[in-house]
Amino acid sequence: MRYVSHRLGDLAAEVGGRLDGPADTEITAVGLAEDPRPGQVVVWPQGQPVPQGFAATAMVATEDTDCLGLPAIRVETPRLALARLLEVLHPEPTPEPGVDGDAVVDPGADLGEGVHIGPGSTVGRALVGAGSVIGSGCHIDDDVVIGQSCRLFAGVVLREGTVLGDRVRIQPGVVVGGDGFGYEPTRSALVKVPQRGGVRIGDDVEIGALTAIDRSTLPGTATSVGAGTKIDNLVQIAHNVQIGRSCFICALAGIAGSTRVEDGVVLAGQVGVTDHATIGAGARVGGSAGVYGDVPAGATYAGVPARPHREHLRIEASLSRLPELIRTVRRLEKRVAELESGGRD
Amino acid sequence: MRYVSHRLGDLAAEVGGRLDGPADTEITAVGLAEDPRPGQVVVWPQGQPVPQGFAATAMVATEDTDCLGLPAIRVETPRLALARLLEVLHPEPTPEPGVDGDAVVDPGADLGEGVHIGPGSTVGRALVGAGSVIGSGCHIDDDVVIGQSCRLFAGVVLREGTVLGDRVRIQPGVVVGGDGFGYEPTRSALVKVPQRGGVRIGDDVEIGALTAIDRSTLPGTATSVGAGTKIDNLVQIAHNVQIGRSCFICALAGIAGSTRVEDGVVLAGQVGVTDHATIGAGARVGGSAGVYGDVPAGATYAGVPARPHREHLRIEASLSRLPELIRTVRRLEKRVAELESGGRD
Amino acid sequence: MRYVSHRLGDLAAEVGGRLDGPADTEITAVGLAEDPRPGQVVVWPQGQPVPQGFAATAMVATEDTDCLGLPAIRVETPRLALARLLEVLHPEPTPEPGVDGDAVVDPGADLGEGVHIGPGSTVGRALVGAGSVIGSGCHIDDDVVIGQSCRLFAGVVLREGTVLGDRVRIQPGVVVGGDGFGYEPTRSALVKVPQRGGVRIGDDVEIGALTAIDRSTLPGTATSVGAGTKIDNLVQIAHNVQIGRSCFICALAGIAGSTRVEDGVVLAGQVGVTDHATIGAGARVGGSAGVYGDVPAGATYAGVPARPHREHLRIEASLSRLPELIRTVRRLEKRVAELESGGRD
Repeated sequence: MRYVSHRLGDLAAEVGGRLDGPADTEITAVGLAEDPRPGQVVVWPQGQPVPQGFAATAMVATEDTDCLGLPAIRVETPRLALARLLEVLHPEPTPEPGVDGDAVVDPGADLGEGVHIGPGSTVGRALVGAGSVIGSGCHIDDDVVIGQSCRLFAGVVLREGTVLGDRVRIQPGVVVGGDGFGYEPTRSALVKVPQRGGVRIGDDVEIGALTAIDRSTLPGTATSVGAGTKIDNLVQIAHNVQIGRSCFICALAGIAGSTRVEDGVVLAGQVGVTDHATIGAGARVGGSAGVYGDVPAGATYAGVPARPHREHLRIEASLSRLPELIRTVRRLEKRVAELESGGRD
Repeated sequence: MRYVSHRLGDLAAEVGGRLDGPADTEITAVGLAEDPRPGQVVVWPQGQPVPQGFAATAMVATEDTDCLGLPAIRVETPRLALARLLEVLHPEPTPEPGVDGDAVVDPGADLGEGVHIGPGSTVGRALVGAGSVIGSGCHIDDDVVIGQSCRLFAGVVLREGTVLGDRVRIQPGVVVGGDGFGYEPTRSALVKVPQRGGVRIGDDVEIGALTAIDRSTLPGTATSVGAGTKIDNLVQIAHNVQIGRSCFICALAGIAGSTRVEDGVVLAGQVGVTDHATIGAGARVGGSAGVYGDVPAGATYAGVPARPHREHLRIEASLSRLPELIRTVRRLEKRVAELESGGRD
Repeated sequence: MRYVSHRLGDLAAEVGGRLDGPADTEITAVGLAEDPRPGQVVVWPQGQPVPQGFAATAMVATEDTDCLGLPAIRVETPRLALARLLEVLHPEPTPEPGVDGDAVVDPGADLGEGVHIGPGSTVGRALVGAGSVIGSGCHIDDDVVIGQSCRLFAGVVLREGTVLGDRVRIQPGVVVGGDGFGYEPTRSALVKVPQRGGVRIGDDVEIGALTAIDRSTLPGTATSVGAGTKIDNLVQIAHNVQIGRSCFICALAGIAGSTRVEDGVVLAGQVGVTDHATIGAGARVGGSAGVYGDVPAGATYAGVPARPHREHLRIEASLSRLPELIRTVRRLEKRVAELESGGRD
């Protein structure tokens, strides 16, 4: 990696922080709290003391952190500053614009300015917006639309009828537009219901490695993911699912067919959501939960089956006491029987 | 997409329905119940009233549905008619026969008539049956057999020893024939047991995106999936598993090594099944369930650990009452103690 | 497949067993217990009787097994012998050294002796150790290091900053080095925290098909997997996770961000582990469990939420009796009320 030197004053401006030290301090990298080095800026978590002799060249910290005299950028949210500093000091490697000689692009494809298509990729009669980067070994079918400044890493497959907004970021191995899992059982077989809809992905969506998002069933419809939603690795989004804006869906979660996930929903890892349900806006579902029906807006659910979190906790606490409870009740039965027989005497 | 016009009378014949209106009504597309348009046929679910002024050109509906005088095709199962109409009115885009100039096919490969091999694909000394379509970026090893009229979408990997029947349909990113997860622990390490069997996939099987089906351990054996079985996305089928015919296995389900799944079994999303178990014919297991042993034929199981559904429901209902039960028992203990001390007075 | 004949005496030496029969018995294949054939050696499980007229040419068995006079190799652990025999009698097909004409290798790549790069693969400015085999359609970014004698099957993606040890074996469709799932919520959006670390995979690690291992967040750090650890298919390893040596992680398991899994841990299928937790050395977690916090070294946990196995079993047993318990308590209440009113008379 190349390191480029930056002045601390410029970095303070970049992160919108207050400079607390000499503006011309030279910074080359983001450093680690547990292994600080000269030339590095370390982003410090609030509420923890900086150790004496801390060897970084500068700090990013909240106003109430004692930086022991080290040059610092003072901010409200260190993690937001970290995000920006990583962009500035450690820019992501990005291939040059142009179609690689080992890519196969249909003459009917419409490529915007500055598009990169990597080796081993195939692009059908698709629209690729300006500045988008398609990595190696991607397969983009006919009838696909990719917005501007998207980034597809290696091995992504977009089947026909997929539409991406702008600045969509897709990690390796993702499949968008696979057939939905729709069959109609008869006495002799499961008859396939052809899946002829598409998939619509909003602006600023990110999709983690090896996630699958199925196409919808009917022409003129789409499985959809709203703007700003972030989806982790190995997630399953079934046909006809509608996901709102700014949702946060963690790894190995699965959302079954036609379910509606409203804005700002958080699904933790391995959550399963049944089909044709509604997860209300801002709801949160805890890890490994199995959601068998609707979840109200703003609610926090957990468990298998998923229940309101408070109820879930109460039940979990009670469960530990269940074996003892059974013994207590058995003793009570005896004592009551004795009382009863005593009464009959 | 191209739209081709069809006569309603021909469509009625296609779906085996009774024509209820003029045979020469022109239809170009399947429409949506919530947004009907002229030229469209809308497939109507049984038991719901058609709204006044419904703007589709024709309906597909059961005999007892009041179609408000619109031309209709009367059927018993609208969803089966929908399946056929989607095929006829919205045929799937299918590449032309031929080996793409950017595919790499071993001279020893045996390709049937009308086979398509897409760009970026590699095919070893394999047999590919007539009419099969292999999409872009697929990797077919030596010693693979693909039946007739199969369809592999982009990025599918079939390792050596994989045998597909006819009309097998595989969504993007599927891996068939990866090593089974077999190790023998010693004091110093986990020793790999080489996996030298194969995988056998029956006719009319469908496999969803990013599903993994591992090869079996011993030469001369195969992990197998019976004819007509449908497998969803991101499913794990471990080595030596035997799956019967017409099973239905939903997304993110996992079946551990050597387990036997008999005909007609339904596993809902995220179901886990332990190794060396038998899931009897026609059994159904509910979403997120963890199956730790055998499931009898015809049974319905749910929960973690999976139990018979009725028992599971009874326990779940009881669970909500557990915290109150603990309080009740505590009060009872006091009351009994009072009675006892009263008795002793 | 080609069969090569081996002498039983040589095979006994290979597996370190005692030859019990003529050394020059010719063996061509490992056979099946349920379908033994001439020329085959069958590895027999301890404790089961060999049926009369067993048609294999030789057996591998423990000393206490009655092999009915068949030539045998006597061993302590038949499954370890099986592992070796499969290697010797059924060697894995391995491509010849060399860069395929349809691979795209950066001039800056450094390929060791005997390396194979398959068709459709792309290799950036990466280091590939001697004897490593990279299958078809793999995508290796710049700034990747692959050790010696590694084997990557088709369609593997290694993003920049990935370092593999020696003899690492990666099944098809694996993605190493995808972005971690790190965002900082603000009022208006989820702000991405760029992921600029790497991934470090130890010697002798195996990774199953379609598994995702995310890069760490900070430059100079790595998500890491210790030597000898085996990872199954469709597993999610999140950013900054640290996995020890000789762990065994089954299919569809997920380990959330920054969690530490110490040496020798076993996670069964579909286990979920929360973020920032520690799973102590040698701990074992049962199938489908949801781990919401730390697990002590050596402990066995199960259930959702995961509890110590003994406690889990006690609770599970109690659960079946809960519906009856509720009825018992209701009856007890009545009986106590009667006693109380009797007492007041």
